[in-house]
Amino acid sequence: MSIDARVLDSFARQSLMATFEARLEHAADGLCRISAPILPLARQQHGYGHAGLTFALGDSAAGYAALSAMDKGMEVLTVEMKINLIAPLTGDRVLAEGRVVRAGRRLVIVTAEVSVDGRQAALLQGTMIPVPA
Amino acid sequence: MSIDARVLDSFARQSLMATFEARLEHAADGLCRISAPILPLARQQHGYGHAGLTFALGDSAAGYAALSAMDKGMEVLTVEMKINLIAPLTGDRVLAEGRVVRAGRRLVIVTAEVSVDGRQAALLQGTMIPVPA
Amino acid sequence: MSIDARVLDSFARQSLMATFEARLEHAADGLCRISAPILPLARQQHGYGHAGLTFALGDSAAGYAALSAMDKGMEVLTVEMKINLIAPLTGDRVLAEGRVVRAGRRLVIVTAEVSVDGRQAALLQGTMIPVPA
Amino acid sequence: MSIDARVLDSFARQSLMATFEARLEHAADGLCRISAPILPLARQQHGYGHAGLTFALGDSAAGYAALSAMDKGMEVLTVEMKINLIAPLTGDRVLAEGRVVRAGRRLVIVTAEVSVDGRQAALLQGTMIPVPA
Repeated sequence: MSIDARVLDSFARQSLMATFEARLEHAADGLCRISAPILPLARQQHGYGHAGLTFALGDSAAGYAALSAMDKGMEVLTVEMKINLIAPLTGDRVLAEGRVVRAGRRLVIVTAEVSVDGRQAALLQGTMIPVPA
Repeated sequence: MSIDARVLDSFARQSLMATFEARLEHAADGLCRISAPILPLARQQHGYGHAGLTFALGDSAAGYAALSAMDKGMEVLTVEMKINLIAPLTGDRVLAEGRVVRAGRRLVIVTAEVSVDGRQAALLQGTMIPVPA
Repeated sequence: MSIDARVLDSFARQSLMATFEARLEHAADGLCRISAPILPLARQQHGYGHAGLTFALGDSAAGYAALSAMDKGMEVLTVEMKINLIAPLTGDRVLAEGRVVRAGRRLVIVTAEVSVDGRQAALLQGTMIPVPA
Repeated sequence: MSIDARVLDSFARQSLMATFEARLEHAADGLCRISAPILPLARQQHGYGHAGLTFALGDSAAGYAALSAMDKGMEVLTVEMKINLIAPLTGDRVLAEGRVVRAGRRLVIVTAEVSVDGRQAALLQGTMIPVPA
């Protein structure tokens, strides 16, 4: 486990991650892993995890992947994100894995994959912008 | 206020909407409005509403817009959704307004706009599929 | 008909627009309209207009909508674009209508709608960045 | 080189691919590669390849990746596609590589990467639907 200090600090301040009992597993060099249970408070109408949970974990993993690759004194904001929902979010533990595809000075391109117990559940592709912290 | 009965029932079963204290304002004929406060439990690192909240409200409004336009005995699933985040989610009350652009037999194209206190905060465009309920 | 001079000049230099015999119909104040026939050279396997044609017209209309809203000395680049293909591109004349949703200093959010003979064929939503010309 | 017969036949009927002098390099088992030069007829205002060219190649590679994984008697249509443009399309030869992420009965999730002379130029993520041929 290796976690960038800025990511650790920022993650700790995201109340939604605490609400979802999400855990930061790894964040370094443009790669970030966040895991979470599918809590009773985060369900959709059939009892599966809500797409809002899937998105929140995937977007956060992508964002922290980007942050872990930024120069000191910078942070990142999500400009846009596209998510393909592939399978219902059901099972024990959700894993969101974010990756930097290209870190430019003005834009950072990211992807993320969300899985449950090893089965692929969603794929994300999006854009972040660096901003002064 | 006009609310499709299936939408009302489905919305009531989404625990994430209850967690966010979201309120179904309108759902009929391919248009849906959901509003919510920005609760302390749904924040990102700067204290703004988390993108996961923005997405959850926008995706739900789009989905229920689609459901309100479906034949009886059908429901809808989100296939994919693209969100552009335009402004920080800060203020009193978030409004997500979903609309059906095109309701086909196999695919439903939807858009949603999320605003806070009248200021535009995000724009979504996506695809739903009808499935037997 | 009102056409921003920078848009006119830039459009004239896009050889792909000439290849498609596309015509710039309007470009001012964040709105742009481009029309084109569906030439035999731009088809997919069933003889409909290729998605590459639909995308090229929609993306250009969105980009020139953005350019028409920029300060002098600036131009715009497409960062990302999402397209939903709604109906086959068949008929007489394609119309792509681009619109600025939000013009910020660092990012411009745009949408475009592509139609053929008045029927909706595609919907686009994307992001442009201003760059010095 | 391995090319699925249906893909070969369909590709040959796409006049836009011929206009771009695109070449089908590989199409089998959910993977497709298409290459093309950046012809003078396919440029944007700075002389780079037009985003419409990038999209057409990426979308076609993704679509034929999907087709190569379909049962006999089926073909695929693009429902939606998201493209992130990463670098200007300049250089000798463009390569678009499409991949099936998940082939379901109702939906096929695909990605594609477009590069020029080995440098990454664009990333695509989208959805196809199988339809009877």
